Amino acid sequence: MVAGELVGVDDPEITALADLASAAVGQVAFVTSKGKLSQVEISKASLLLVPKDFPGVSRTVIRVADPSWAATVIQHRLSARPFAATGIHPSAVIGEECSVPDEVSVAPLVCLGARVRLGQRVSIGAGCVVGDDVVIGDDTILHPNVTVLARSLLGARVIVHSGTVIGSDGFGYAHDRQGHHLKRLHVGYVQIDDDVELGANVCVDRATFGKTWIKRGTKIDNLVQVAHNVEIGEDSILVSQSGVSGSTVLGNGVIMGGKAAISGHLRIGNRVTIAGKAGVAASVPDGEVVAGFPAMPHKQWLRMITSLPRLPELIKEIRELKKQLSALKQNQITKVDG
Amino acid sequence: MVAGELVGVDDPEITALADLASAAVGQVAFVTSKGKLSQVEISKASLLLVPKDFPGVSRTVIRVADPSWAATVIQHRLSARPFAATGIHPSAVIGEECSVPDEVSVAPLVCLGARVRLGQRVSIGAGCVVGDDVVIGDDTILHPNVTVLARSLLGARVIVHSGTVIGSDGFGYAHDRQGHHLKRLHVGYVQIDDDVELGANVCVDRATFGKTWIKRGTKIDNLVQVAHNVEIGEDSILVSQSGVSGSTVLGNGVIMGGKAAISGHLRIGNRVTIAGKAGVAASVPDGEVVAGFPAMPHKQWLRMITSLPRLPELIKEIRELKKQLSALKQNQITKVDG
Amino acid sequence: MVAGELVGVDDPEITALADLASAAVGQVAFVTSKGKLSQVEISKASLLLVPKDFPGVSRTVIRVADPSWAATVIQHRLSARPFAATGIHPSAVIGEECSVPDEVSVAPLVCLGARVRLGQRVSIGAGCVVGDDVVIGDDTILHPNVTVLARSLLGARVIVHSGTVIGSDGFGYAHDRQGHHLKRLHVGYVQIDDDVELGANVCVDRATFGKTWIKRGTKIDNLVQVAHNVEIGEDSILVSQSGVSGSTVLGNGVIMGGKAAISGHLRIGNRVTIAGKAGVAASVPDGEVVAGFPAMPHKQWLRMITSLPRLPELIKEIRELKKQLSALKQNQITKVDG
Repeated sequence: MVAGELVGVDDPEITALADLASAAVGQVAFVTSKGKLSQVEISKASLLLVPKDFPGVSRTVIRVADPSWAATVIQHRLSARPFAATGIHPSAVIGEECSVPDEVSVAPLVCLGARVRLGQRVSIGAGCVVGDDVVIGDDTILHPNVTVLARSLLGARVIVHSGTVIGSDGFGYAHDRQGHHLKRLHVGYVQIDDDVELGANVCVDRATFGKTWIKRGTKIDNLVQVAHNVEIGEDSILVSQSGVSGSTVLGNGVIMGGKAAISGHLRIGNRVTIAGKAGVAASVPDGEVVAGFPAMPHKQWLRMITSLPRLPELIKEIRELKKQLSALKQNQITKVDG
Repeated sequence: MVAGELVGVDDPEITALADLASAAVGQVAFVTSKGKLSQVEISKASLLLVPKDFPGVSRTVIRVADPSWAATVIQHRLSARPFAATGIHPSAVIGEECSVPDEVSVAPLVCLGARVRLGQRVSIGAGCVVGDDVVIGDDTILHPNVTVLARSLLGARVIVHSGTVIGSDGFGYAHDRQGHHLKRLHVGYVQIDDDVELGANVCVDRATFGKTWIKRGTKIDNLVQVAHNVEIGEDSILVSQSGVSGSTVLGNGVIMGGKAAISGHLRIGNRVTIAGKAGVAASVPDGEVVAGFPAMPHKQWLRMITSLPRLPELIKEIRELKKQLSALKQNQITKVDG
Repeated sequence: MVAGELVGVDDPEITALADLASAAVGQVAFVTSKGKLSQVEISKASLLLVPKDFPGVSRTVIRVADPSWAATVIQHRLSARPFAATGIHPSAVIGEECSVPDEVSVAPLVCLGARVRLGQRVSIGAGCVVGDDVVIGDDTILHPNVTVLARSLLGARVIVHSGTVIGSDGFGYAHDRQGHHLKRLHVGYVQIDDDVELGANVCVDRATFGKTWIKRGTKIDNLVQVAHNVEIGEDSILVSQSGVSGSTVLGNGVIMGGKAAISGHLRIGNRVTIAGKAGVAASVPDGEVVAGFPAMPHKQWLRMITSLPRLPELIKEIRELKKQLSALKQNQITKVDG
């Protein structure tokens, strides 16, 4: 299952994954570095996943290329349960012409609009509201109190955490000369592809026209803002409280750190990494690592940021240099005159 | 309707607004600059709104002062529908002594507290909770899963997006010498005037005493924080993830960029623009444009921010200057001595 | 009750606390500094709480050590009402084997999962969803539309504002070489101790293993992110839109300003103050005051930040110094040659 080499007792009975410090008998834990050797010696775990080059220890281990990945694969295997459909709770309100298979769980006090189409084994938590014409793919989970507005399309195995809003209007207005704002009607929609996960209290606005699009495998943390017409590539990571402004396009494998921000109408290339708290005000080519505000290459930012605290001292040094230079000049003049 | 000059076919049949790139036959699109000329040539739109000075093109256009504004006006006209009241859904729970006109839409699983007063054509989305003594004006829309707490006052044509909370307690405590925090009871309320729009997952706290007040025409994006006793003038714009601390007063026509923050107890003048990610720590007079943290005039910030990456190089230059100066001095001394 | 000295009319009849400017007859207000003397003269309040050294005024005052604290104590006393249990509303959905005392208020359209245990005088607002096996202590209040996910533990006198999510999955994935992210199943839980208050639209993620823990008396403002496995000590304050990354431990009495951020796996000591908008990237010892990004001692940051706007001018000065030095050198050479 994890392509590793078992060393020790042949077949320990394992029921769950745990962390190294608190693992009990019957549990598997993992170690990513040799620095944890002392903890390994005292862990009660019945099985340990260790890196291939981990020192020999007198306990049962599996040597694997990536213990973190292997542990997660094992965790999914150990906790896999057949989907237990609870059907539609009688307190749920189901709109007209919905397509709902038998094998779903629609919790209490859910409201589905008209013509909603649910895939197999969809689970909708209590208090969720799903608007008209929404399509939700197989095995997708909406946790309680999620709002999915009209015409949104969700793929398979999508996970949406509580409080998240998908398909609210984008923030766009026309402005007259008196400074009044006239709302642009947002007639677009939101498309969320397979295996995307959205954290809690995330906002994904619908497009003005066309679609706001989050592609396969992208994971978004809590309290993130995804504005209208944004496109986020596959396997990207947006950490908590980050935000992407309208019509910006992110490539595949982009990483946005916590509280990072990207301005509107930009193109962020594939595998770009944006450091936490960065503010990206210009497009970024593939593979770059940027930081700061306005964002610059991360190495440049590091040099700058380590220089910054020396600034008050530099001001003094410049003042001193001016004084010395002036004295030197005076001296020279004096000597010439003398 | 839009005070423009029609050039071309007299009366194209138009059903909707679309964007230039994807507009189909029967749709109207708009262009704001000459740079889009090549797209204009190939657009399938039946009608185009263009600036007054746009080059002549061989298709039907209306020349207008502001194509974006004109397009939005037309969009509202084209999509205008008479309000289709659905009445009160039987699963909604209505408190005592509420005043609810016939022509409203109260969706499934809504909870109205006691003595709630709804205006004409109010629409309340599924899962909304409206507290005791709330007043909601004509034509106001609460999208699903909005929470409006007791005694809040909402004007006419207000739009509130999902997940938004109006009237939660302000964040205020008295502190004793042991560092314990004693909650101040927040007995004030929130007033939101006509034509305000609040995005998704916004927070507007009630006042400690008196009111937190958002005035006519102001538009607030997703995930914005409006603290207790804040006052926001008319026609202001607060972009996503910005925040205003307690008791700060914003004038009319203020623009706050994304992730901008304002400290408490300040006065931000009329038509002040605060750049994205700025942190405003002092009051700002009318008409200023500020940026950075602590915020400074935008032009000064631009000069500073473009100088910043040169800092490490400056440190080297100063070191070099010191060396040269010291050599020069030595030289002078030597010559004097020699 | 407040350990002060009453000066003036013996026993004014007081019904509520108000602010100085708007207080009416029969109300008590408080003053914290002499600067408000002119307002004191015209206030209609029947009683004023003033500092011990406040000048004599011709009205009824109580001289106390801390008027803000005294006012809040009095406010709680004046507004104390016996808990008015409304019982379980018939529209609420209660799971199997829940333990719910008679004296609770469970509002309309609430959903409790299985085996939920509520303490005495618990109040659960409309639209709240409480997951399986959640325990809620005495006198705790969930405002409307709160989500508390499975196995969360809430203490006594906890207050949770609307839209807040407790117990969503932490943001953790294993990554393979192709850049795919495999979700770590979060099997931990959230523990919130007595007297904690959480604002609106806050997110508190459950632990990967073990628990995310917010300790007694800590107060958290709106839109704050508390990641998986974070531990926040007693009596701490987290201001709006701040965020704490995974596995970071905060001590007691920590203050985080608005929009401040802390990276993961750090230790923030007791009574540390983190300024608004700071980004803390390293552990901070007890009692420190830090600011900026990356965070540094606040005094150092102040010096730096006041130097910053002088940077463009410094660049000019250095250029000028180089020119003068070069001229001086040339001059010296000329003289030597001459």
